[in-house]
Amino acid sequence: MKQTVLMKEMDAFTYRERLATNPIVIIPVGSLEQHGPHMPLCVDELLSTDMAIAVAERIGAVVGPAITFGYKSQQRSGGGYHLAGTVSMTGKTFIDLAKEITLELAEHGIRRFVFCNGHYENYQFLFEGVDLAVRDLRARGIEIICQLISYWDFVDDATIDRLYPEGFTGWDLEHGGVLETSLMLLLHPDLVDMERVSDDPPAVLPNYDILPIKPELTPPSGCLSSARNATLEKGRILLDTAATGMVEAIRHEF
Amino acid sequence: MKQTVLMKEMDAFTYRERLATNPIVIIPVGSLEQHGPHMPLCVDELLSTDMAIAVAERIGAVVGPAITFGYKSQQRSGGGYHLAGTVSMTGKTFIDLAKEITLELAEHGIRRFVFCNGHYENYQFLFEGVDLAVRDLRARGIEIICQLISYWDFVDDATIDRLYPEGFTGWDLEHGGVLETSLMLLLHPDLVDMERVSDDPPAVLPNYDILPIKPELTPPSGCLSSARNATLEKGRILLDTAATGMVEAIRHEF
Amino acid sequence: MKQTVLMKEMDAFTYRERLATNPIVIIPVGSLEQHGPHMPLCVDELLSTDMAIAVAERIGAVVGPAITFGYKSQQRSGGGYHLAGTVSMTGKTFIDLAKEITLELAEHGIRRFVFCNGHYENYQFLFEGVDLAVRDLRARGIEIICQLISYWDFVDDATIDRLYPEGFTGWDLEHGGVLETSLMLLLHPDLVDMERVSDDPPAVLPNYDILPIKPELTPPSGCLSSARNATLEKGRILLDTAATGMVEAIRHEF
Amino acid sequence: MKQTVLMKEMDAFTYRERLATNPIVIIPVGSLEQHGPHMPLCVDELLSTDMAIAVAERIGAVVGPAITFGYKSQQRSGGGYHLAGTVSMTGKTFIDLAKEITLELAEHGIRRFVFCNGHYENYQFLFEGVDLAVRDLRARGIEIICQLISYWDFVDDATIDRLYPEGFTGWDLEHGGVLETSLMLLLHPDLVDMERVSDDPPAVLPNYDILPIKPELTPPSGCLSSARNATLEKGRILLDTAATGMVEAIRHEF
Amino acid sequence: MKQTVLMKEMDAFTYRERLATNPIVIIPVGSLEQHGPHMPLCVDELLSTDMAIAVAERIGAVVGPAITFGYKSQQRSGGGYHLAGTVSMTGKTFIDLAKEITLELAEHGIRRFVFCNGHYENYQFLFEGVDLAVRDLRARGIEIICQLISYWDFVDDATIDRLYPEGFTGWDLEHGGVLETSLMLLLHPDLVDMERVSDDPPAVLPNYDILPIKPELTPPSGCLSSARNATLEKGRILLDTAATGMVEAIRHEF
Amino acid sequence: MKQTVLMKEMDAFTYRERLATNPIVIIPVGSLEQHGPHMPLCVDELLSTDMAIAVAERIGAVVGPAITFGYKSQQRSGGGYHLAGTVSMTGKTFIDLAKEITLELAEHGIRRFVFCNGHYENYQFLFEGVDLAVRDLRARGIEIICQLISYWDFVDDATIDRLYPEGFTGWDLEHGGVLETSLMLLLHPDLVDMERVSDDPPAVLPNYDILPIKPELTPPSGCLSSARNATLEKGRILLDTAATGMVEAIRHEF
Repeated sequence: MKQTVLMKEMDAFTYRERLATNPIVIIPVGSLEQHGPHMPLCVDELLSTDMAIAVAERIGAVVGPAITFGYKSQQRSGGGYHLAGTVSMTGKTFIDLAKEITLELAEHGIRRFVFCNGHYENYQFLFEGVDLAVRDLRARGIEIICQLISYWDFVDDATIDRLYPEGFTGWDLEHGGVLETSLMLLLHPDLVDMERVSDDPPAVLPNYDILPIKPELTPPSGCLSSARNATLEKGRILLDTAATGMVEAIRHEF
Repeated sequence: MKQTVLMKEMDAFTYRERLATNPIVIIPVGSLEQHGPHMPLCVDELLSTDMAIAVAERIGAVVGPAITFGYKSQQRSGGGYHLAGTVSMTGKTFIDLAKEITLELAEHGIRRFVFCNGHYENYQFLFEGVDLAVRDLRARGIEIICQLISYWDFVDDATIDRLYPEGFTGWDLEHGGVLETSLMLLLHPDLVDMERVSDDPPAVLPNYDILPIKPELTPPSGCLSSARNATLEKGRILLDTAATGMVEAIRHEF
Repeated sequence: MKQTVLMKEMDAFTYRERLATNPIVIIPVGSLEQHGPHMPLCVDELLSTDMAIAVAERIGAVVGPAITFGYKSQQRSGGGYHLAGTVSMTGKTFIDLAKEITLELAEHGIRRFVFCNGHYENYQFLFEGVDLAVRDLRARGIEIICQLISYWDFVDDATIDRLYPEGFTGWDLEHGGVLETSLMLLLHPDLVDMERVSDDPPAVLPNYDILPIKPELTPPSGCLSSARNATLEKGRILLDTAATGMVEAIRHEF
Repeated sequence: MKQTVLMKEMDAFTYRERLATNPIVIIPVGSLEQHGPHMPLCVDELLSTDMAIAVAERIGAVVGPAITFGYKSQQRSGGGYHLAGTVSMTGKTFIDLAKEITLELAEHGIRRFVFCNGHYENYQFLFEGVDLAVRDLRARGIEIICQLISYWDFVDDATIDRLYPEGFTGWDLEHGGVLETSLMLLLHPDLVDMERVSDDPPAVLPNYDILPIKPELTPPSGCLSSARNATLEKGRILLDTAATGMVEAIRHEF
Repeated sequence: MKQTVLMKEMDAFTYRERLATNPIVIIPVGSLEQHGPHMPLCVDELLSTDMAIAVAERIGAVVGPAITFGYKSQQRSGGGYHLAGTVSMTGKTFIDLAKEITLELAEHGIRRFVFCNGHYENYQFLFEGVDLAVRDLRARGIEIICQLISYWDFVDDATIDRLYPEGFTGWDLEHGGVLETSLMLLLHPDLVDMERVSDDPPAVLPNYDILPIKPELTPPSGCLSSARNATLEKGRILLDTAATGMVEAIRHEF
Repeated sequence: MKQTVLMKEMDAFTYRERLATNPIVIIPVGSLEQHGPHMPLCVDELLSTDMAIAVAERIGAVVGPAITFGYKSQQRSGGGYHLAGTVSMTGKTFIDLAKEITLELAEHGIRRFVFCNGHYENYQFLFEGVDLAVRDLRARGIEIICQLISYWDFVDDATIDRLYPEGFTGWDLEHGGVLETSLMLLLHPDLVDMERVSDDPPAVLPNYDILPIKPELTPPSGCLSSARNATLEKGRILLDTAATGMVEAIRHEF
C-alpha cells in the first residue's frame, strides 16, 4: 500500500506502529458549504485537510479523520445557512462529534492533538467539544494536550499586505475570496473555474446578526469578497506561510 | 470544473440546477474502522461511496455527502470497538447526525433519499435518525421518501454461490473478507496489499454479545474471515450485481 | 410471602440476601407491540420474562425488572410502528433506560448481567445502553460482565427443521407466527385465541426499509407469517430448547 | 381471549375497536422501590395499576401501559435511593418516557388521558413529560386532555380519621405504612408478610433534604411509618374511597 | 469596594480569600413569575436572595449566584405557566443549570452548599440537578454536602397561627399572598403597591392537575390567595422566623 | 410601584399593557466571571444590563430578563475558565437557556428581540440558541426578528483612537481593562477599586487555544490589559457611543 500521512488510508497495523511513536495527530475540521459559483461545496474540508497534510509532512505527524460537516454558516462569515448547498450540524451535534472523535483517538493512545479548523463558524463549538473530552479524560486520569488552530491566523500581516495590495477586509469576509480560491487553484485546480468568479462588490454586512437571516444582505454569488485576484502563486505563498506558522506553533507546544 | 455526480464536488449553482430536477440523492454511510492488515481504515466510507456512485451514474442521481464515522464496531460483525484504528460515534450522535443531514437536504428541496450503508452496525441508528427527520418534516407539512439499503443485501444467492464456492458464512463475518477486499482490489488497488492478507481461520463467535468485549474472540488480524480468495474479478461481479440490484430497487420505489 | 425468582416480587431484605451470593441477574427486554388478532400486545414482555424465569430456575439466577416498552417496530421484523397498539420508545430513550437500569443494579452490587431480548428491533439500542453503562462503571473502577441474548438465537437448526416442516423463513418474519404463538399457547393460553389466527400468506417484504412506512406492505393481520401451525407442544419444545441453550451459554460465560 | 380492561392484554384489533369509542386511558405510574421487609419492590406498580383498574371498571376506561420504574426515591418520602432494591430512572429519562408514551397513544387516537401516580417522587417529572407531549401535539394541531392524579389525594379527611385513629403523619411518611400495606393485604395478600412488619418508630426526618443522603436518618426497615395497624378491611375502605374520588374527578373533567 | 456577602459583588481575589475559610455557600433559587398586580415578576429571585443574605450574615456564609429562572409555574402553586410575564425553564434545562453551577463552585473548592429555594415548583428539579452533581463529583473523589431548603418550611405553626388568624390554607396557595407580600413590604417596599392588591377570593383548585392548563381556574389576579392582610410587620416576623430556623438547620448539618 | 424599563421589576399587569404596544425587548447576556482584583464577578451582567437600559430608555423598549451565567471563559478573551470565581455554563446549557427564554417571551407575544451581549465567549452559543428558537417558532407559524449585538462593536474607530491614545489591542484583550473599568466607574463606582488595579503588562497570548488551559499564560491579575487608564469620563463616552450606535442599529432593523 502507498505511504501516507492520512490515518484513514493507513491499515490498522501500520497505524498501530505509528501510535508507538506517540505521534501528533492533526484533525482537519471543515464543512460542506456553498463557496460561490466557482468552487465546490467541500472547499473547507479540502483546505483544512491540505493544510493538515502540509504540516504533517513537515513534522512527521499523522493527519487524523476529518470533520466534514461544519456548524451553520453565518451571514457575516459564510454568507448564511439559508443558501442551498450548505449542509450543517447543529451546535450540539458538532460538540458531540468533536468530543467523541477526541475520546476515541485518546482511547488508541493519542495524547497530542492539533485541530486545524477551516470553517470560521466552527471554532467555539470545536472548543467546547474538545474541552469536554479533555475534562472527561482527566477525570479518568488521562491527560491529553490539544491545540486548536484556524489556519488563516497564521497568515501574517506582511503576507497579507503582499497578497492584498488593494487592501484587506478581514478573514470573515474571505469566504470564497482570494485566500480560499488561491489555495484551491494551487491544490485542486480541477475544482476551480475562474471564469465563474463573481464580480459582486464585497459584501457590506452590519456589525451584528439578524435572525432569521435577511437573504438580501448576502451577494448573489454567496461570496463575501471577490476571488478575481486569486492566483495559484498566491496559493503557494499562502500555503507556505500558513504551514510554516503552524509548524512553528506546534513545535512550540509539543 | 469537472463533471461529477458528487454533491460535495459541485459548486452551489450547479447543485441548485440539479435541485430543479427533483433528483434522487444517495447518501453513503460508512465508518472509520480497522479492516485488517491489508486494507485501510476507510474501506466502508470508500465502498459505500463507490456503490453510491455506481448507482447514481446509472440512474442520474446525485451522491450526497458521506457519513464517514460509524456506530461502534461490534465483535460479531466488525471485530469489536476495542481495536485501535476504529473511530466510532455513540448511538445518539450517529442518530443526530443522520437526522440533521436529512433535514438539511430536505431544506434544499430534496424529497427522494437513498441511504447506502456500508457498515453493518450503523443500520438501526441510521433508521432512527432518518425516521426522526421524516417525522419532524411531516409535522411541518413536508413529505420525503427515504430508502435505506445495505449494499451487500443486493448480492443474490446465485452470485454468492459463484463467489464463495467453498461456502458462505454470512455477511456479518464478511468483515475484511472476500467481499470488501475484492471490491477494493477493483476500485482502490493502491489501498490493498494482498501480501498482508491474514490466513487466520474464520472467526468462531458466539450467538450473543459479551460486554465488555472479550478481545481473545477476535482473530489477531481483526478480520472475521480470510480475504485470501479475493480477486479483482470478484470485485467486478460484486459491484455489478449490487449496483444492478440497487438500481432496480430504487426504480421500484421512485 | 411466596418464593420467587422475580426481583420485583421480592422484598428488599430478601433481595439483599440474594445479593450476598453474587447472583446472575437476567433482565427481560420486551415491548408493547401488536401481535395480530390472536395475541395480546404484551407478548414480547411475557415471553422474554418467561424465558428469563425458565433459565433463572435452572441456574439459580434472579430475574431482574423487565423493560416493557421496546424500540419502534420496523416493517420487516414487526410489521411497523404505524399500527395502533404498538407503543415504542425512541432510540435515545431506550438507550437511556437500558443504561440506567444497568447502573442502578450495579449500584446494588450486581456484577453479572444477562439481557434476554424478546423484541427484534431492540437489540442495537440495548447494546448501546449496556455498553455506555459498562464504560461508565469501568471509569469508576467497577467491572461488570453483560451477556446480551435474543432467545430465538438458541433454537438450533435441528429444532427448526422439526418445528417448521413446511420450511422456515427466518426469525425476522416470525412476528406473531409459530414461535411466539406456540410459546403463548404453552405459557399463557388464556391470552391466545387460535380462532382469530390470520391466514394471511406470509408477508413479502423488500430487502430494504422505506420511510415513512408503506402500510400496504404489512399484511392486514399485522403478523408476518401465519401462526396456524402453532401448538402447545411446539411451545414446549421451543421453551426447552431455548432455555437449554441459554443455560449453556450463560454457564459458559460465568 | 379473556375480557380485560388492560390494554397490554388486549390484542391489537380489540384495542382498535375500543379506540373507536374515544376511551379514557388511565396510565399507572409506579416504581421499583424497597417497601420494607414485608412487601415486594413492585408495590407502587401494583397499586397504581390496581387503582387504575378499579376506576376503569367503574367508568368503562382502558388501563394503559404502566410506567414501572420511578424517579429516585427521596429520603423524606421513600426512604432514599441508597437502599438496595430500588431501581430508579433519572429525571430526564422519566420525563422522556412519560412524554413518549403520551405521544404514542395520541398517535393511536387517544385524546383523554388520566395518569394515576403511585410513587410520590414521580409527580413533577411526570408533569413535565406530559406537558412536553401536550405542547408537541398542540404544535401539530392535536389537542389532548391529561389529568394527573396521585391516588392518595382522594382519601378524604373523614376516612383518614377513621383509618388512623392514633393520628396521621402525612402521605409522605406513608411509605410502606398503613395505606400501602392495607391495600396490598386486600389485593395481593400473597405478597405481604405481616410477620415481617417492622416496629420501628415513625421516621423523624428534617424539613429539608441533604445530599448525599444520610443513611442513618432512614429507619432500618426502610419504612417511614409502621404498617402494624394495616388490615385488609382498611384496604377495602381505602380502595373504595380513592376509586370513588377518582371516578368523580375524572367524570368532572371528561 | 463595599463589603458584601454576595459572591457576585466580590472581586475574584476577595472571593478566593473567602474560599480559604471553607465557607458555606448559599445559592438562592428563584424564578421570573407573575405575582399579581401588586408585585413584580422577580419576587422569588428577590426573596430567595434576601433570605440567603439574612442567613449568610448570621452565620458568616457567602451568598452564591442566584438561579433567576424557575421551573414552569403550575396552576395549583403559582397560577400556571400560561400567564404572560412568567418565563420558565424546562425541567431538563433547570436540572442542567443547577448541576453545572454546583460543579463549577465545587471546582473552586466549595464543599458546603445550601440551596435556598423560593419557587415551589423548582424543588424536584433542583434536587435532581444537585444530586447529579454530587454523584459526578463523588465519581471523581470529591465529596460535597448540599442542603436543600424551601424557606417557607421554616415558618413554624405558632408563627402561622399568629400571622394567619383567619386560617391558613397552605404554602401552595401562598402565591402572591400574605407571606410574599409581607416580606416584600419589608424588604422592597418600592416594588409593592398595596392599592393594587386583588380582593379575589382564594383560589379553589382541584387536588390534581389538568394539562393543558384550564385558565378559568386561576383567579384573574394570578394570586391564589389575597395579600390584603400583608403588613411590613408580618414581613419582619416571617423573615426573622425563617432565617432563625434556617440558621439552626444549617448549623445542625455543618 | 416605581416606573421601570426592567421587565423583572414590572408587575404582570403592567407588563401586559406594554405587550399591547408590540415592544422591542432587549435581553442582557452576561456572565459570572473574574474581572481582576478591582472589579466584581458580575461585571458582564451589570454592563450588558446597563447598556440595555441606556438603549431601552432612548427607544422606549423593555429590558428583558438577563442571562447571568455565560459560556466558559476562554484564555484569549477572558483569562480562562480555570480561575476561581468564574461560574460558567456548558455550551449546550447556554444554548438551551437562550432558546427557552426566547420561546417563553415569544409565547407572551414578543416579536422583536435584541440580545445585548456583554461576554465575548457567549456569542456563538447565543446565536445557536436564538436560531433554534426562531426555527421552532417558524415551524409553528410564528415569526420573530432577533438582533444579536455585542455592545463593544458599537464603539467606533474614532472613539477608540480617543480613548486609547497609547494604542488599542483589540476587544478580546479588553477583559478587565479600560473599557469595562471605565464603564463601571461611571455606573457602579462602589464596585470598583482603582487602587487594586493591576499593573501587569498586557497579556501576550498565542493565536490559538491550548486545552487544558496553560495557567501561566494568563497574567496573575486575570486581566488581559491594564485598567490603569480607565476613567469615569471615558465611561461616559463609551456608554454614549455604544448606546447611540445600538439605537441606530436597532432603529435600522425595526
